[in-house]
Amino acid sequence: MSLSEVELPLIWCPLESARHRRAAQVEARAEEWIENSTMCATPSERDWVVATHSADFFARFAPVADDDRLLATSLWVYWGFAFDDARCDNGPLSTRPAAFNALAGAVQRGLEAPSARHEEERFIPALQGIAAMFRSFGQPALVRRFGAAHRAWLSGVAWQIGNAAAGRMPELDEFLAMRLLSAGGEPTFAMLELATGMEVPAAELEHPAVRALTEMAIMVAALDNDSHSLLKEMKRGHTDQNIYSVLMRHEDLTVREAVRAATALRDRVLLRYLDVHERVRRRAGEELRCYLDGLSFGIRGNAEWGLRVPRYLSLGRVPDEAMGDAALEWAERPAVTTRAPLPAPSVAWWWDRDLIGA
Amino acid sequence: MSLSEVELPLIWCPLESARHRRAAQVEARAEEWIENSTMCATPSERDWVVATHSADFFARFAPVADDDRLLATSLWVYWGFAFDDARCDNGPLSTRPAAFNALAGAVQRGLEAPSARHEEERFIPALQGIAAMFRSFGQPALVRRFGAAHRAWLSGVAWQIGNAAAGRMPELDEFLAMRLLSAGGEPTFAMLELATGMEVPAAELEHPAVRALTEMAIMVAALDNDSHSLLKEMKRGHTDQNIYSVLMRHEDLTVREAVRAATALRDRVLLRYLDVHERVRRRAGEELRCYLDGLSFGIRGNAEWGLRVPRYLSLGRVPDEAMGDAALEWAERPAVTTRAPLPAPSVAWWWDRDLIGA
Repeated sequence: MSLSEVELPLIWCPLESARHRRAAQVEARAEEWIENSTMCATPSERDWVVATHSADFFARFAPVADDDRLLATSLWVYWGFAFDDARCDNGPLSTRPAAFNALAGAVQRGLEAPSARHEEERFIPALQGIAAMFRSFGQPALVRRFGAAHRAWLSGVAWQIGNAAAGRMPELDEFLAMRLLSAGGEPTFAMLELATGMEVPAAELEHPAVRALTEMAIMVAALDNDSHSLLKEMKRGHTDQNIYSVLMRHEDLTVREAVRAATALRDRVLLRYLDVHERVRRRAGEELRCYLDGLSFGIRGNAEWGLRVPRYLSLGRVPDEAMGDAALEWAERPAVTTRAPLPAPSVAWWWDRDLIGA
Repeated sequence: MSLSEVELPLIWCPLESARHRRAAQVEARAEEWIENSTMCATPSERDWVVATHSADFFARFAPVADDDRLLATSLWVYWGFAFDDARCDNGPLSTRPAAFNALAGAVQRGLEAPSARHEEERFIPALQGIAAMFRSFGQPALVRRFGAAHRAWLSGVAWQIGNAAAGRMPELDEFLAMRLLSAGGEPTFAMLELATGMEVPAAELEHPAVRALTEMAIMVAALDNDSHSLLKEMKRGHTDQNIYSVLMRHEDLTVREAVRAATALRDRVLLRYLDVHERVRRRAGEELRCYLDGLSFGIRGNAEWGLRVPRYLSLGRVPDEAMGDAALEWAERPAVTTRAPLPAPSVAWWWDRDLIGA
């Protein structure tokens, strides 16, 4: 496939846009923290990490956080991008599942156990510094929820790395189950509660309808990210597992057809999300309402960020631009109107009728 | 090392013994369920699974469960043993991390998504049947907690399989962090709440002291299991990653010295467990007290079960004996008296002073 063949459609996203009013100040504090941490091995790596503008990113997810909480959660996003670039997507481990599994185990243990020591792996002490900030907020249930989400993410990356090592391009159903994890949406959305401090009662947060909304938000954002990074991936000659390569391989589509099909899949998920969201929010208590609002801010914010961030736009050069702020254009309507479940059993339960009552 | 060299010391375990009074009836129901499920490929595999006496095992963890809940949770234990034998420890995937990572992803998604379909992998539909029972109890937070614990277990198995593939024997610190997961104690203890129906408030369950108690209970049980299976492993010529092989390799110990060192490590964890348990239980609410009692029942029950179950005693023959009921002998005192943290940073935080107040 060639770059000129690809024309990405406008994104359909009828959700409110928001951004923390002190995003710029928090971003400055985050850059200082990164400068003083051991996280980046070289100035170029640091430039790449700073260019993710992760504070701007998470400021869109949590427009109501206090500054210290927005700083801590933004730092994890920076950390996640840096770790992903160095150890997951492109690093020497990207096709070595045995080595990655052991690293993921050590990283996760570093997150959970304040006493764990791994000075030889620069990403672990940095992560432990962030975890200490999370703990300082005094809500251990939220730290544990984040920890579980973090493990889910690493398990998805391990799955992806295993597929890459085996030269295996997953079919749609497997890809969606894997992408739900590997995209990093689990820990990102799990930080909504840490950022706002609004702790959702377990029985509400884990209700199947709320769980489905969380997964749908992750999926929409993950597919949007596949779209944002398509040009970059093509430019760099990656043959990564993404929604386009999956559809092209297994459904025998051209890249243009794959873009159309992926857009339709993504819009179907968002349509269902909107239906369920509206029904669930109506009956939600204060904390759950705050969480549900965060899911929507996150979908919208991720799309806005992805359309503007130099990480995606620079096509492989080390980016030095500031975050763009040009007005964005959006699609006026979804690419499809069907309310039928996706043809993927792993996620079809999002359309269960009893999820939102008869 | 030879079998005659090994003399295992009596286990020190000053904890109350208990067993559900309808364990035998529940075991009969479980055997019928297994017979009708797709889980076992051959009669011999079924015999092995039945010979785990998993209902007796979990009847010792949850002596107060109602029958249906004890059945469902016991079924997962049977399932776990069967899956472990066929897909983790001994099967063709036991040194193939790429394939195992993908399988673990599919298994975990099968657990979480009722709509997921994997008819080609016989363990997944059986697991989904068990998950449906868990959901039927109407406590979605407990199902999610179990799910997170289940993923933690699979991540530990993936770690172990990666090490086996790379021919890597972990050092003590890595081994303990890995064994905490791969032993299966996370999902087993997470089922305490599902069995009793006593849902512990998230802020109490995730309090660091309670989390440390959970991890210490898992570790004691895991090290006891290493002891139970030592003779079997040696007989079958396995060179698995267990506490003895780790100590022999990296501390240059003989098998007799390794047994002594492992016993000391294990007793130190149990000593700390008892101290913390006593302090935390005193201030605990009803649900948390029930959970804490379950941790202790579990440590004791696991030890009793391991000393009697034909799975370990038969040394590789297909076992056809019933569960033994001979009186057991126990050590009268711990092998050590030190209250110092283990020399393993990954778990040293269990000894933090502020875990239980000044």
